[in-house]
Amino acid sequence: MTEPMFNRLALVGLGLIGSSIAWAAKRKGVVKEIVGTARSQATRDRALELGFIDKAFETAAEAVDGADLVVLCVPVRASGAVAEEIGPHLAPGAIVTDVGSVKRSVVNDVEPHIPEGRYFVAGHPVAGTEHSGPDAGFAELFEGRWCILTPSDKSSADATQKLQAFWEALGSNVEIMEPDHHDLVLAITSHIPHLIAYNIVGTVADLETDTRSEVIKFSASGFRDFTRIAASDPTMWRDVFLANKDAVLEMLGRFSEDLSTLQRAIRRGEGDDLYKLFSRTRDIRRSIIDVGQETDEPDFGRMRETRSKKD
Amino acid sequence: MTEPMFNRLALVGLGLIGSSIAWAAKRKGVVKEIVGTARSQATRDRALELGFIDKAFETAAEAVDGADLVVLCVPVRASGAVAEEIGPHLAPGAIVTDVGSVKRSVVNDVEPHIPEGRYFVAGHPVAGTEHSGPDAGFAELFEGRWCILTPSDKSSADATQKLQAFWEALGSNVEIMEPDHHDLVLAITSHIPHLIAYNIVGTVADLETDTRSEVIKFSASGFRDFTRIAASDPTMWRDVFLANKDAVLEMLGRFSEDLSTLQRAIRRGEGDDLYKLFSRTRDIRRSIIDVGQETDEPDFGRMRETRSKKD
Repeated sequence: MTEPMFNRLALVGLGLIGSSIAWAAKRKGVVKEIVGTARSQATRDRALELGFIDKAFETAAEAVDGADLVVLCVPVRASGAVAEEIGPHLAPGAIVTDVGSVKRSVVNDVEPHIPEGRYFVAGHPVAGTEHSGPDAGFAELFEGRWCILTPSDKSSADATQKLQAFWEALGSNVEIMEPDHHDLVLAITSHIPHLIAYNIVGTVADLETDTRSEVIKFSASGFRDFTRIAASDPTMWRDVFLANKDAVLEMLGRFSEDLSTLQRAIRRGEGDDLYKLFSRTRDIRRSIIDVGQETDEPDFGRMRETRSKKD
Repeated sequence: MTEPMFNRLALVGLGLIGSSIAWAAKRKGVVKEIVGTARSQATRDRALELGFIDKAFETAAEAVDGADLVVLCVPVRASGAVAEEIGPHLAPGAIVTDVGSVKRSVVNDVEPHIPEGRYFVAGHPVAGTEHSGPDAGFAELFEGRWCILTPSDKSSADATQKLQAFWEALGSNVEIMEPDHHDLVLAITSHIPHLIAYNIVGTVADLETDTRSEVIKFSASGFRDFTRIAASDPTMWRDVFLANKDAVLEMLGRFSEDLSTLQRAIRRGEGDDLYKLFSRTRDIRRSIIDVGQETDEPDFGRMRETRSKKD
C-alpha cells in the first residue's frame, strides 16, 4: 500500500480507461477519494453501482471542485470543451491530465483553459482492450504498460513528477516525449493498424451475403485478429483520426506506396521480391519480443490452455 | 483410441503442419506407421530425434512407397514437382492429399501426375501458428479447427470420405468446397490479412532508426498484433500470393478502394462517415464470436493470467 498521493481524484469520463484508473488507484491506495462524471445518467449510476467511484456528479464543473488530480477520460476532440467547462472550477495547485491517443491537438485545445496556478500535463497510457464502457475496466490494465507524458507550457516540473509517480504506482512505465513526436510514433504503432483493421473489416461487410458468412466461418485464418482491433470504440477512434490527421495521412501514404509495390510484385509474379520482404519482417517481430513487449507464444497464447507437452 | 485407418502415412515435408499431423495421428492412433521425407538432412534428423516419424527417407519417391495415405506438406508451388516425383511410386489405392492454403493451382498441378487407381483429394487444414519447422508442431493444432477438402476429378467419393474421417479423428471439422470458391474465401480471410500485415511491418522496417526503435517500444498499441501475422513462413506465403494471384488481386483492389475512401474522409474531416464505418465493423466481430471462431476475452486473452476479479 502506497501513501495516498492525492486527496481527491476527479474522473471526467467513466469508460474503459476511467474505470480502470479508478480500480487501480483504489487497489494501490494512491488516492483518498475518487469522484467522477459522465454525460449519461446510466453510466454514472453504473459506476456507483460497480463502486469504482465514491461520488458521481452531473457536470464536470462540479466533479472537479476540490480535486487535486483531474483526469480527462473523454474522446480527444471533446477535451477542449471539457477544459473550458472545468477551468474556472479548478482548485489552486490542481493537476489536470488526460489519456488521449493524440497529444498535440489536446495540448492545443486544453492549455488556453488552464488558469494560473493550475497545471496541465498531457498523458497517454498505451493500454486498452477492444471493450468499452464502465464495465470494461480492471485494475491491472496499466501494469507493465507504457504511459507517455508530453509536458508543455502549462506543465511544471513538479506536476509532471507527481503525475509520473501516480502512473508508476498504477504499474506503468513512464516515458516523457514531445507531443508531436508522440503523434508520429503512435500514428504508425496504433492509428494506422486500427485504420487498416477497420478498413478490411469494412471490405468484408460489403461482400455478398454468402461469401460474408463463409468469411466469418473461416475467420480464424487471420481475419479474426483484425476484427478484434476493429471492435474498439468508434467515437474514440473517429476523434483520433481527425485529431492526428497529418501524421496519419503521412504514414498512410507510405503504407499505400508499399502496398502498391507488393501488388505489382504479385501481378508480375516476382517471387524473389516477395520472399525478401516476408523474411525481413521477422526481424521486427524478434525485436519486439526482445524488448519485452510480447511473448513468443504461438497464436497469441490462445492455445495456452489446451497445448500440452508432446512426450 | 480409434482403430487405425491407414497402415502407412507418408509425410512429404516435416515442418509445422507435417509434424503436427504426425503428433495428432500418433496420439489418436489413426495410423500404424508414419514415415516422412524433407529436403534437408537436418530436418529429417530432427524429425527422427523428436520421434514424430518412424522412418525418414531421402526422397519423396522412396517415402511414398507402400503408403496408403500421402500428405504433401510443402509450399503450394512445390506440389506439382513432388506429385511428378511420387506418381510412379504410389501404391494402388493410395490416397494423396495436401495441406496448402491455395487449392485451384494445387489441383491443376498435382492431378496430371496421379496414375489410374490412385486418388487425389486436395485439402487445407485452416490452422497454424507463426512458428515453422519440425519443432513447431503439436498434436492439438487441428482441434476444433476447420479442414476444407476440395475434391476434383482425381478424387473418389470413397477417398474423400476416408480423408474426412482422418481429419475428424485429428479433431477437425471438415467442410467440402469447390477449389475456386476456397481460394476466394481464403483470399479475404487469410491472404489479404497476411499481405497487409507483411506490408505494414515492412513500412516500419523502412523508418528512420530512431523512430523504428520507438515503434518497437510502443508496439503493444496495435502494431504488435500485425508482426505476429507477419512472422509466418516466407516461402509458404510467397507461394500463396503467386498461386492465388487472381483472387488476391481482386480482393486487394476492393481493400485499396475502401482505404482511399477512408483516407479522403480523414483528409476532409468527415467525422460522421468515419463513425459510421467504425460502428458497423463491430457487428462482424460479434458474428465471429457467435459462430464460435473466437472468444470475447479482451486483448486475445493476454491478460488471462494477471486479470482478477475486481471485488
